[in-house]
Amino acid sequence: MKPSIALPLLLAAALATPAVAQPANLAAAHAKLAADYDTTIAELIELTEIPAPPFKENVRGLRMAEKFKALGLTDVHVDAVGNVIGIRPGKNRTAKALMVAAHLDTVFPEGTNTKVRREGDTLHAPGIGDTTVTLAALLAFVRAMDAGKIVTPRDIIFVANVGEEGQGDLRGVRHLFSASPLKPRIGDFISFDGSTVGRITNAGVGSRRYRVAFKGPGGHSYGAFGIVNPMVAMAGTVSGLYKIVPPTDVKTTYSASTVTGGTSVNSIPNEITMEFDMRSASPANLQAVETQFLKLIADNVAAENAARDTRFGKISATPELIGDRPAGTTPATDPLITTAARILGAGGYSSELGASSTDSNIPISLGIPAITLSAGGGGFRAHALDEYVNVERGAFVKGITTAFDIVVAAADIKR
Amino acid sequence: MKPSIALPLLLAAALATPAVAQPANLAAAHAKLAADYDTTIAELIELTEIPAPPFKENVRGLRMAEKFKALGLTDVHVDAVGNVIGIRPGKNRTAKALMVAAHLDTVFPEGTNTKVRREGDTLHAPGIGDTTVTLAALLAFVRAMDAGKIVTPRDIIFVANVGEEGQGDLRGVRHLFSASPLKPRIGDFISFDGSTVGRITNAGVGSRRYRVAFKGPGGHSYGAFGIVNPMVAMAGTVSGLYKIVPPTDVKTTYSASTVTGGTSVNSIPNEITMEFDMRSASPANLQAVETQFLKLIADNVAAENAARDTRFGKISATPELIGDRPAGTTPATDPLITTAARILGAGGYSSELGASSTDSNIPISLGIPAITLSAGGGGFRAHALDEYVNVERGAFVKGITTAFDIVVAAADIKR
Repeated sequence: MKPSIALPLLLAAALATPAVAQPANLAAAHAKLAADYDTTIAELIELTEIPAPPFKENVRGLRMAEKFKALGLTDVHVDAVGNVIGIRPGKNRTAKALMVAAHLDTVFPEGTNTKVRREGDTLHAPGIGDTTVTLAALLAFVRAMDAGKIVTPRDIIFVANVGEEGQGDLRGVRHLFSASPLKPRIGDFISFDGSTVGRITNAGVGSRRYRVAFKGPGGHSYGAFGIVNPMVAMAGTVSGLYKIVPPTDVKTTYSASTVTGGTSVNSIPNEITMEFDMRSASPANLQAVETQFLKLIADNVAAENAARDTRFGKISATPELIGDRPAGTTPATDPLITTAARILGAGGYSSELGASSTDSNIPISLGIPAITLSAGGGGFRAHALDEYVNVERGAFVKGITTAFDIVVAAADIKR
Repeated sequence: MKPSIALPLLLAAALATPAVAQPANLAAAHAKLAADYDTTIAELIELTEIPAPPFKENVRGLRMAEKFKALGLTDVHVDAVGNVIGIRPGKNRTAKALMVAAHLDTVFPEGTNTKVRREGDTLHAPGIGDTTVTLAALLAFVRAMDAGKIVTPRDIIFVANVGEEGQGDLRGVRHLFSASPLKPRIGDFISFDGSTVGRITNAGVGSRRYRVAFKGPGGHSYGAFGIVNPMVAMAGTVSGLYKIVPPTDVKTTYSASTVTGGTSVNSIPNEITMEFDMRSASPANLQAVETQFLKLIADNVAAENAARDTRFGKISATPELIGDRPAGTTPATDPLITTAARILGAGGYSSELGASSTDSNIPISLGIPAITLSAGGGGFRAHALDEYVNVERGAFVKGITTAFDIVVAAADIKR
């Protein structure tokens, strides 16, 4: 889950959404969610303590598959990229299904201590709020549906997916919406990510990330003085990038983020590598910045080759695309959004629409209705080692119950 | 060894230098140097393949100490900073000695592949020419003196010293001319550095080296977009530095050499650290460039703080002086220079005086006669990964023999 920006929401159209389950069924399900609190927290702790670094989610994934099977989901399997799938059949097995997902991966590298520390109602551990808490919520949802004997009009495909964070580059959900045999079955998509309930992320902030290696011949800082230096082409690119005035209609950003290079203080470097990040919820804005960025690299390489001696070699630069998240927006009038907004509003949450970079970027960019929601009692300091979630019983059960109601109602939308 | 600039030399005064050893002794020594070719090349390869990164010369140093001992040098030891010392006693043990040194360290970091690749008469490997080739030459010198039964008028102190390159900042030789108990014994100093024979470096190029940490608040690349980025202040400093047209009266140089910083591709960095090198044999030129450089840092920090949001913190930059090599000149009339010039001239080398930044900077700045010479068949691309030396038998033996004759003759100078 990436921090998002709030957008205003008009909910007038939301009030006509039909009821999706009989009150008695829902009441039983809600009772189960409340009674299940200790089980859910125990599962949250268990799953958090199974490390899931980027590209190494398999141990946690296998545990989720065991739990999916134990809950009686059908067709439980780990797919070609590591996503864990389990289906809860609905009345109409041929209708387009609702996919409900939470990502397995955390941002934290191997070796990070993921032992959960409890302080009163607060559980501390890296990755606990982003988003192990919603992996536990998926399990609670299934138990509650079963307790309420709820049969949804169409299938719900539960997914614990890989590769949401950083260089994972959404590879789990990317697979589900490309090569996966499930792709034609997905009618809409909800990603549960984070535990602070109230935000509906319906706009996917797109990003284009590059690693650029500026290369040159290198040499002795005194003896070879006057030859081209890749540092100068890099510096010109950074300076030029930060002169770009970003569009203001839709937030658009860039960042010169990491850099490394050089041999020693007395050597002209032969390689400088820099990583850049560009983002916008507007594909046009994003492309405009990217085009300028790529031109800046070419221009600054050419300028350095023109400015200094190239007899030992020229400067070159190779921009390598290391991240590519598509942008887009699920329209605010889509029933998925109006349903979620209605239920959040009824629960007293200040529902608002937002733009962020999440697993929903992929279906949104394909025109498939998708939103990202949270489930739980509040979470903070995502991506920081002091990450934590609030699990005070009342707030937590209310948050998870509201999320549950959105899933049940969304499964009643006709696609 | 730093590539040097040529200065004209008048050698009229050089012709009166006395002979230093009987022709028969020298002939036997020269025969040994020729016969020793394969051994010397084998030792060059062996030593090159023992990595000696800055501050990590100890393994190569211990191997040199073993070789010094095996050759029968006396008082062989590793001193307080890692220099390897071995003395070849002369007739007069109390006269001021001649110190003959070559540095152990290379510019290449740990993990650099130092495996030697041979292509005909060319040996390729990082550090082979700067200056493993002269470490091997010191060993050949001792074998040749022994073969010629040469007893020099005074002691020769052989040294394989640490810390010549980069951030080593001449610490090995600095120690020999400050805290070392050998200091009062040193009458003059020859550093053998590099394999292209013909140049006499008698002027020490001064250098000022800085590590600059550009710091800022850092943050999320999307969420915190608009805040100040230390990368921009760094980039502006580099761009500005490379717009400086250096003085042409005395060669003056600058280099933006190494850089590192940043947290992740999706974070605005909170710290970028860059290392810079500035040099000149003219103290005034050096100071002029340094003054402009320091102003560029301050100006670019101020510009970035003015250009972007500082609510979470401002950009700052702390220039730390990490290298300060004194400049100076050994007079062209000193017998050390006239002796070397005479022998080079007799060998048909276009002997010329030069300015460079070498271990000799330290004794030169203290008024102790010192020069830096080369020994071997030619070397190129120092400080580059494709560094190489030419070891064609004829040129190599001639080069090392000429260097040897200079050492033997210099040991006959009265100090």
